[in-house]
Amino acid sequence: MHVAARYILTLALLLLSGVAAAQTDPLPSWKDGVVKARILAFVQAVTQPGGKHYVAPADRIAVFDNDGTLWSEQPMYFQLAFAIDRSKAMVTENPELAGNSVLKAAATNDMKALAASGEKGLLELVALTHAGNTTEEFAAIVRDWLATARHPKSGRPYTELVFQPMLELLAYLRANGFQTWIVSGGGVEFLRVFAEEVYGVPSQQVIGSSVKTKYELRNGKPVIVRLREIDFIDDKAGKPVGINKFMGKRPIAAFGNSDGDFQMLEWTTAGPGARLGVIVHHDDADREYAYDRASHFGRLDRGLGEAGERNWMVVSMRNDWRRVYPEERK
Amino acid sequence: MHVAARYILTLALLLLSGVAAAQTDPLPSWKDGVVKARILAFVQAVTQPGGKHYVAPADRIAVFDNDGTLWSEQPMYFQLAFAIDRSKAMVTENPELAGNSVLKAAATNDMKALAASGEKGLLELVALTHAGNTTEEFAAIVRDWLATARHPKSGRPYTELVFQPMLELLAYLRANGFQTWIVSGGGVEFLRVFAEEVYGVPSQQVIGSSVKTKYELRNGKPVIVRLREIDFIDDKAGKPVGINKFMGKRPIAAFGNSDGDFQMLEWTTAGPGARLGVIVHHDDADREYAYDRASHFGRLDRGLGEAGERNWMVVSMRNDWRRVYPEERK
Repeated sequence: MHVAARYILTLALLLLSGVAAAQTDPLPSWKDGVVKARILAFVQAVTQPGGKHYVAPADRIAVFDNDGTLWSEQPMYFQLAFAIDRSKAMVTENPELAGNSVLKAAATNDMKALAASGEKGLLELVALTHAGNTTEEFAAIVRDWLATARHPKSGRPYTELVFQPMLELLAYLRANGFQTWIVSGGGVEFLRVFAEEVYGVPSQQVIGSSVKTKYELRNGKPVIVRLREIDFIDDKAGKPVGINKFMGKRPIAAFGNSDGDFQMLEWTTAGPGARLGVIVHHDDADREYAYDRASHFGRLDRGLGEAGERNWMVVSMRNDWRRVYPEERK
Repeated sequence: MHVAARYILTLALLLLSGVAAAQTDPLPSWKDGVVKARILAFVQAVTQPGGKHYVAPADRIAVFDNDGTLWSEQPMYFQLAFAIDRSKAMVTENPELAGNSVLKAAATNDMKALAASGEKGLLELVALTHAGNTTEEFAAIVRDWLATARHPKSGRPYTELVFQPMLELLAYLRANGFQTWIVSGGGVEFLRVFAEEVYGVPSQQVIGSSVKTKYELRNGKPVIVRLREIDFIDDKAGKPVGINKFMGKRPIAAFGNSDGDFQMLEWTTAGPGARLGVIVHHDDADREYAYDRASHFGRLDRGLGEAGERNWMVVSMRNDWRRVYPEERK
């Protein structure tokens, strides 16, 4: 071979191997270290045919909390921001609704009154702002809100405040034959509006809290109506219940960030074989938020205390993540 | 080319094309005719890239009732046979349980008393025989029963009384990128024990009736306990509600056999684009059973009357199916 040709070939091979090396890092936003190494080792173990910890694709299920795990949850749960905006729109359209104290508090940004109404008040707010319409009408309202609402601190659309390292993790798991599921305390029909587009998670793999619904005919056309009655709260001990109800299987990997995810992590990691339990710790006030034991939203106390003895991994957003959010869309 | 060689080559090609033609009938147990042609045309239409009726794989969802659609339901629902056998076992083990009139009626084959107890009595029977244990204990009980119980007329295991043409249809749809789901009035945790092995439908694609459950720790080990309280009845108008609850999408094809499937068929076929609604009509007393409007189990009255105007297809088991059940396993 001509010397110049050989040189060019060598160069090409080097370039190609460089590309290959870059391609083999499926988690570029995760810094190298113990956390990333353990995630990679877990996936390697359960996908190795004939290996001691091999898991068939049908049982390769990973569950993710949403608020605080896949996207931010400060200064308040994004769905609460939706409920407040929705209250304003409803009261503007129909002023007599301000006779309801919870709707009034939300519509006037009276957070003290809203907090004072307690869990009962918040459930009432959800029932009033999230129900009484058909599933298709509700989805359209959520879609419109997501398109126009902006996060107060960053000014970005809420669906851009998702965690880039977690998007990579979802894609990496799916590329390795996992089914990725969302198991959220948030409303299932709120989540399903954007889960497929934003996370690549189809609506049939989203579990969440729900209101009761009713099938009926309207002008001869069948609709499903959202009733003002809570059907299921997918939080704390409700998470394993929801997982069992919807999939009838125990996941092998669980990702959460608050004590609302404790039982989901406990249930997942108590199964036999290789298991992965991960808690995202919000310790990055510069790039996101820093909070844990004392936070009103996404309180993390027991999980932080018991992660070590339970062999759950705690992810430091500050130290383990190269970046937090994806690039802004133009 | 040598003449003999050419002859052999031609013969080989003919044989190969013969094999190919045989392989292209994905529904060998369905007789050629309108029903089979319409199923094939529907699948062709929704899978044709760029076609007017193309549906992306993520939305290519087909739902199947179970009792009477995928397996037989005479002389009684198979799960009722399970409840009766379970009553006998429970009363044998703990004779004072015969103090309960419903359990006693079931345990002594007193079908008149059982029928007289009405829907309330049947729900009580389900609560007593299907709950009070953990999900894992219940699954083991069902598994043992399926392994040993025999159908009274045929003497075969219940899981062999599945319809061969429907097994082919499930496989054919999946080969064309469909997700196949079961949407049954039967108990979801009963069905999930065998749905994957018998139908190739994973547990996370099974929707059914359910009892409430509770997450708790037993000796430090997390379990999910089945409570004696009905959570959801997946029948009639409950079927579209269950579909929306579990998958948040509207299927494009629905298969049923009784009026309990009416709303599922209505909901599915009311959507836009190509839709397929199919009713299996039990008109084959020789090979299976013949019943419709007057049957206690799997009553089909309204569906039969309105199938024509609604453009739902009625499958005649006698005329459209070459065979009913798979070969007996030895």
